[in-house]
Amino acid sequence: MTKAIVTVMPKAGVLDPQGKAIGHALGTLGFGGVGEVRTGKIIELELAETDPAKARALAEEMARKLLANTVIESFRVELA
Amino acid sequence: MTKAIVTVMPKAGVLDPQGKAIGHALGTLGFGGVGEVRTGKIIELELAETDPAKARALAEEMARKLLANTVIESFRVELA
Repeated sequence: MTKAIVTVMPKAGVLDPQGKAIGHALGTLGFGGVGEVRTGKIIELELAETDPAKARALAEEMARKLLANTVIESFRVELA
Repeated sequence: MTKAIVTVMPKAGVLDPQGKAIGHALGTLGFGGVGEVRTGKIIELELAETDPAKARALAEEMARKLLANTVIESFRVELA
């Protein structure tokens, strides 16, 4: 069993309204000195594949086909 | 400027319907050998605070007050 962690973030230049809302809410709560806020998703997958290279390739294929919208989002895969 | 990365995940035992949906969708797409899928959020913050210990404490306070619902979610803070 291999645990793959896929992190999906909006690409640079893509608007992130959720991040903007969080930045605004932090200011309202009294937190100063907060610059840009970006939000993304993290998907932890338990894979039956035990070979690390194959597990990584599988998780990357899953990210390209389902987990990330590669037009506006970039992703990276880590194995844990 | 310090970049803080807050990762928020559902606590063990908390239902994660989005993760379940992703697991099901991966099966529909032909990906086999997928066990449990858990989804979380990642929030990248640019902080004016330059002292690493203070920046980490600040990000943890933001997570407790706004970014995470600590009843059902756990979080961790990394500095990048």
